[in-house]
Amino acid sequence: GYATKTFEATLFPGDGIGPEIAAATKEIFTAVRVPVVWDEQHIGKTPDPRTNSMVTRENLDSVLKHKIGLKGPMTTPIGKGFRSLNLTLRKELDLYANVRPCFNIPGYKTRYDGINLVTVRENTEGEYSGLEHEVVPGVVESLKVITRKASSRIAEFAFAYARENGRQKVSAVHKANIMKKADGLFLECCREAATRYPDIKYEEVIVDNACMQLVSNPTQFDVLVMPNLYGDIISDLCAGLVGGLGLTPSMNIGLNGLALAEAVHGTAPDIAGKNKANPTALLLSSCMMLRHIGRKAEADNIQNAVISVIAEGKWRTADLGGNATTSDFTKAIIDKLE
Amino acid sequence: GYATKTFEATLFPGDGIGPEIAAATKEIFTAVRVPVVWDEQHIGKTPDPRTNSMVTRENLDSVLKHKIGLKGPMTTPIGKGFRSLNLTLRKELDLYANVRPCFNIPGYKTRYDGINLVTVRENTEGEYSGLEHEVVPGVVESLKVITRKASSRIAEFAFAYARENGRQKVSAVHKANIMKKADGLFLECCREAATRYPDIKYEEVIVDNACMQLVSNPTQFDVLVMPNLYGDIISDLCAGLVGGLGLTPSMNIGLNGLALAEAVHGTAPDIAGKNKANPTALLLSSCMMLRHIGRKAEADNIQNAVISVIAEGKWRTADLGGNATTSDFTKAIIDKLE
Ligand SMILES: CC(C)[C@H](C(=O)O)[C@@H](O)C(=O)O
Ligand SMILES: CC(C)[C@H](C(=O)O)[C@@H](O)C(=O)O
Repeated sequence: GYATKTFEATLFPGDGIGPEIAAATKEIFTAVRVPVVWDEQHIGKTPDPRTNSMVTRENLDSVLKHKIGLKGPMTTPIGKGFRSLNLTLRKELDLYANVRPCFNIPGYKTRYDGINLVTVRENTEGEYSGLEHEVVPGVVESLKVITRKASSRIAEFAFAYARENGRQKVSAVHKANIMKKADGLFLECCREAATRYPDIKYEEVIVDNACMQLVSNPTQFDVLVMPNLYGDIISDLCAGLVGGLGLTPSMNIGLNGLALAEAVHGTAPDIAGKNKANPTALLLSSCMMLRHIGRKAEADNIQNAVISVIAEGKWRTADLGGNATTSDFTKAIIDKLE
Repeated sequence: GYATKTFEATLFPGDGIGPEIAAATKEIFTAVRVPVVWDEQHIGKTPDPRTNSMVTRENLDSVLKHKIGLKGPMTTPIGKGFRSLNLTLRKELDLYANVRPCFNIPGYKTRYDGINLVTVRENTEGEYSGLEHEVVPGVVESLKVITRKASSRIAEFAFAYARENGRQKVSAVHKANIMKKADGLFLECCREAATRYPDIKYEEVIVDNACMQLVSNPTQFDVLVMPNLYGDIISDLCAGLVGGLGLTPSMNIGLNGLALAEAVHGTAPDIAGKNKANPTALLLSSCMMLRHIGRKAEADNIQNAVISVIAEGKWRTADLGGNATTSDFTKAIIDKLE
């Protein structure tokens, strides 16, 4: 039996298909009898001056209080000068590590086999500093900021994650041959962390070569750690190797165990409300959330059920070439639960 | 018959396997009777204060004089504080466009089929500004510089290239949702160029999504144009899709038709001097060089011969899983020439 102590968690259903895939997730959690009380949060409709975005103080406080949350896709209204909702959450909650496991789902064929890697992305600085200015007309400077503080903590995080999860190797991805000081500092922090983890192999890979290696021989990788923008690029690339953002989970982690799991695909407005959405990314993200708070058995139960439904192939949603509805797919998963 | 007017071209054989693959190229040019006089240039052994690298004034003047050149791989001595040789050549010669066609070689199997795209990389600024400093201990700023001048000329180049080469679409790759001003300026220049080429389709793709699309559905792309670092990453990624840097050509283009074709793979010191190197990337690059100066027939003759030798599979070098020597492979190509 699972631990029965009730816990609270924030849930941002999000926009577009968000509410449907969040409903599927809640249904499956109920079926597994996860003793969760969801604190459902909705992003504001008008900007909150305290966050300079639609994210409200109440939204942030909910996550800070429960220390754990799950988030569906959200759209930021464009061109209004507000910060992206995703970025606001990461920044305001100091969710410094973005973790994305990337693995083949058995029976779901892509061009690749046997992939089982994890990208660990620094989530707070780098090219995402927001510091840019036009020096003179037609000349723009954009600042990439790399700090020892942020680089050390993400490097430490990656090695600790590797050890805890029985992984063998950490590859630091960089472009220190060009950004000698910035990426050089990042590498310095990775090397320091590596000395604290003699049981974990350590290597350095230049970002362009990393991408070439990932598309030609991805099974050589285990844990990849990198600054923000390389992480953004490479985590999407990796998702593409195994079926796209609709099938890959993600979690953002902060201090003191704070964590917000999220489906990183889009809101798919074209199919929103039509019972066609695939909840897999949110479900697998919810499993990361459960594992993070020590509820491994429930996470495995749900994840195995999701994977075996996709593997069987009878109930596949449209994005996977089938014609199952979200409800069909959800029911099939519930039928597979232990 | 080919035009018989003799022309001069600079040749940098380069380091490691460079001299062998350059020799193979010269032999094939002789067999095709390309009326070239090679001006062989070697990078200096001590730094030239006029370029702050091992690249000498004479090296640069040779390319400037002949306006056309071919370059093998080179290694920059590490940690001596000198600029990379490749970067020095690009910067000093203002070779602002890096062009890399990427296509499947018939009969050489990778996970992908039907790829036929070209990456056009801005080659002079962006993250390669070399401007970095430590603000306070542990805080580094690295400057990405985007200018209207460089962005306009690369955008114009990409569209002109597309039209001249019968291509249908230009995709601008960017991260303007984050670097709103820098990548925003880049996009503005691409949009302006697009209006001058109503016959060419134009689209914009965010760099993370571009990488996911490239690994899942690369045949949707035709010409990709992008700032320096995305170009560095994506051109290597694309090479990975069709067999790696050993099979993909590259050319750097500057003002007034100045062009330096180059093999962008490494110097492979482990097999240097052993008659094992694969000259394909340099040969295909030499074909880009020939086309650039209007010698299309010779270029097609060589390229078809190279491709058909690889396709046949009888004479493959070790990197392609065979055991042909560089000489075997070269001879096989010569036998296939028209
Ligand atoms: C939506 C966008 C701002 C975001 C990013 O660039 O980080 C996204 O691509 C991601 O990876 O979560
Ligand atoms: C060697 C290195 C400096 C160079 C670059 O980063 O541009 C290489 O990766 C390339 O693409 O030619």
